[in-house]
Amino acid sequence: MDAAEFRRRGKEMVDYIADYLEQIEKRQVYPDVEPGYLRPLIPDSAPEEPERFEDILQDVERVIMPGASSPACTELETVMLDWLGKMINLPPQFLAGKDGEGGGVIQESFSQATLVALLAARTKAIHRVQREKRELTQGEIIGRLVAYTSDQAHFSVEKAGLIAGVKIKEVPTDDKFAVRGSALRKILDQDKAAGLIPFFFCATLGTTTCCSFDKLPELGPMCNAENIWMHIDAAYAGSSFICPEFRHLLNGVEFADSFNFNPHKWLLVNFDCSTMWVKKRTDLTCAFKIDPVYLKHDHQESGLITDYRHWQIPLGRRFRSLKMWFVFRMYGVKGLQEYIRKHVKLAHEFKDLVLQDDRFEICADVVLGLVCFRLKGTNELNEALLKSINNARKIHLVPCRLKGKFVLRFSICARTAESAHVQFAWKHIVMLASELLKAQKQQQ
Amino acid sequence: MDAAEFRRRGKEMVDYIADYLEQIEKRQVYPDVEPGYLRPLIPDSAPEEPERFEDILQDVERVIMPGASSPACTELETVMLDWLGKMINLPPQFLAGKDGEGGGVIQESFSQATLVALLAARTKAIHRVQREKRELTQGEIIGRLVAYTSDQAHFSVEKAGLIAGVKIKEVPTDDKFAVRGSALRKILDQDKAAGLIPFFFCATLGTTTCCSFDKLPELGPMCNAENIWMHIDAAYAGSSFICPEFRHLLNGVEFADSFNFNPHKWLLVNFDCSTMWVKKRTDLTCAFKIDPVYLKHDHQESGLITDYRHWQIPLGRRFRSLKMWFVFRMYGVKGLQEYIRKHVKLAHEFKDLVLQDDRFEICADVVLGLVCFRLKGTNELNEALLKSINNARKIHLVPCRLKGKFVLRFSICARTAESAHVQFAWKHIVMLASELLKAQKQQQ
Repeated sequence: MDAAEFRRRGKEMVDYIADYLEQIEKRQVYPDVEPGYLRPLIPDSAPEEPERFEDILQDVERVIMPGASSPACTELETVMLDWLGKMINLPPQFLAGKDGEGGGVIQESFSQATLVALLAARTKAIHRVQREKRELTQGEIIGRLVAYTSDQAHFSVEKAGLIAGVKIKEVPTDDKFAVRGSALRKILDQDKAAGLIPFFFCATLGTTTCCSFDKLPELGPMCNAENIWMHIDAAYAGSSFICPEFRHLLNGVEFADSFNFNPHKWLLVNFDCSTMWVKKRTDLTCAFKIDPVYLKHDHQESGLITDYRHWQIPLGRRFRSLKMWFVFRMYGVKGLQEYIRKHVKLAHEFKDLVLQDDRFEICADVVLGLVCFRLKGTNELNEALLKSINNARKIHLVPCRLKGKFVLRFSICARTAESAHVQFAWKHIVMLASELLKAQKQQQ
Repeated sequence: MDAAEFRRRGKEMVDYIADYLEQIEKRQVYPDVEPGYLRPLIPDSAPEEPERFEDILQDVERVIMPGASSPACTELETVMLDWLGKMINLPPQFLAGKDGEGGGVIQESFSQATLVALLAARTKAIHRVQREKRELTQGEIIGRLVAYTSDQAHFSVEKAGLIAGVKIKEVPTDDKFAVRGSALRKILDQDKAAGLIPFFFCATLGTTTCCSFDKLPELGPMCNAENIWMHIDAAYAGSSFICPEFRHLLNGVEFADSFNFNPHKWLLVNFDCSTMWVKKRTDLTCAFKIDPVYLKHDHQESGLITDYRHWQIPLGRRFRSLKMWFVFRMYGVKGLQEYIRKHVKLAHEFKDLVLQDDRFEICADVVLGLVCFRLKGTNELNEALLKSINNARKIHLVPCRLKGKFVLRFSICARTAESAHVQFAWKHIVMLASELLKAQKQQQ
């Protein structure tokens, strides 16, 4: 959708809302529908080809309005998470379907998805240990619990540990910045010998620092054998799994208990939209379920409906799945795949430019849309280059540290990114780097 | 703003966004401003009278765009929370100002505000106890910590306790459904004698069930003397404190450590917007602060800026304060006060109708916009009445239980509520109640 079409469609939406407000007293105050009404009204997977905006807008009246905000908000979310789960070919246990034990939910943020997974794992571990060792109190068990994540993992995992009051340990990564089975094995054995209780492992697919991938096929079976909840954080990389050629990066997800990524990062859904799937939704609801009278309803114990308030920390929820429904239909799966492929291609274009200049080096494999690079030389030199780039305010880069090296990250993010932007950025970087190296030489 | 004006203004906004997208490459990628740039550009408190929409929209270009999303998003939020804090006459320690120790933040939900307060209190309590009793481990301290809230409190307090892994105890309320100092005193003394460590009290102003108010002036000094963090949940009632005649309900807030309410409930700010203030922001940041390289920035240690990521669970943030800025200016404080007063008046109108029919009784004081009422008689009778009302789908009521009694709640919520709606609802309820009583008589 270009700006001209946005003007037209945006104004149609404004009229739709104004009409709704003007006519609101003619509508029913409470929906007439039965639980599960929505699923049969729409297809069971996302369209391959783009659909017309008119048709989508008409469906709002046909599909959503009869179900008002509740249960439509819940039911569309469950079905959209099934659509998206199918788009990335998640194992069927993660889908809700009509009678599955798993399913998806939109969390407030991926930090919160990690926290929710950790808390569910904590509850499950406490129950398990209490059955085996009746002499231990809950406090004593929590004191022995230990969770693991990559030394490249996002800081939100450590934060979740702080909140849950459990120890978090970093597992060292290999030379590709990936956690291997052998590294986890070693730390597990040490901790078990010391009387600790391993209960949670957060694997990362596409680390923030350099987009590296933990080795799920090695780690998953180990976690399953050791009663360790495996959660997968694929916040950024997850969107790419809709392309068959990138789906292998998700292999091993079949061993996971929960999986999360952020369609707002790279799937054209506006911020925020952080999607999480679990194999057993009772694992979540056991950790959070509290039912006061003012929230009781007729269908509560029927097993027919999903009470997302037991899947998350807040009670209230926004109708975020509408965004997913619109985006998936306006682009079609093919359109979204093209978008991902274009960004990956642009990242490779940038990588090739870097490789052609032997003053620079590439610091990590370029798998998706992120290129980690630096000037061959000291950290101070690269810190100066970053400062010079960001002070010029033509492009903006965010750095990281990889095994002690200060590294620049070139990330393809914008919806409208084109080859011309990549070429412009590289010329600009080269110019600033040349100035810097020249000034440095003059000083020596 | 009526539907006609909404059509006009909405379309202007669509054009503004489309213009922005078309011109985006002409804008700077990174803002040029210094920390604190925004505060001097706007008044230091909300306007009394409504302002013109054109002027507000022009200010987006003048005030927000030079600061891009960061730091404008953070800085506008800090100033809007100061505006709102002044509107409800919060003690100055809760305001950020230019060099205050306190300040406000928009949390994801009031459940999350409660959780954040509880976690900050937990960290503070652990540090304090560890200084006094060095032999205790963190796990042992957490095992002894105990938090309190009203037996009428929202279930999210219990949920926060589940997440934080600490005991939560309910304090019994008096015949007005309020926690009194004497009730808290009794349970504190018992728990301290049993070796527990009281550390947190969540007071409620305007309970979900019946809009009752805990006695802050009795509870606050006790909490302060006992090193107990007092958090106030005024999710619904908080908005009313902008009216001088309701501000006395907040008396005692000066003893609190943190305070929260939801402007999305009753202050015309769209969902979601849950605002929280603390007296010492270091209490929050101590509980959450973790600083990875990829989030470091130049102004980090300067003390000049606010890193809201240390105030909350998620990392990402939406630009919610824009909604507050628009609403406060479009209505002015006077317009918002009128809106609150009108709703309270409508609730009293409904209460008077109930009192005129001696088959009904009022079950709790009507202080704001909620009326708790029931048919004199059994719970079964009232459950049948509720069912009949909600099945008719003309109006919708949510019930509660008050000291064993099943009670119907008539709540004034809608922006467009008028006397005609109240009259219509009461006639409808009376008709259904009469039918029900008649059918019951025939059965006997």
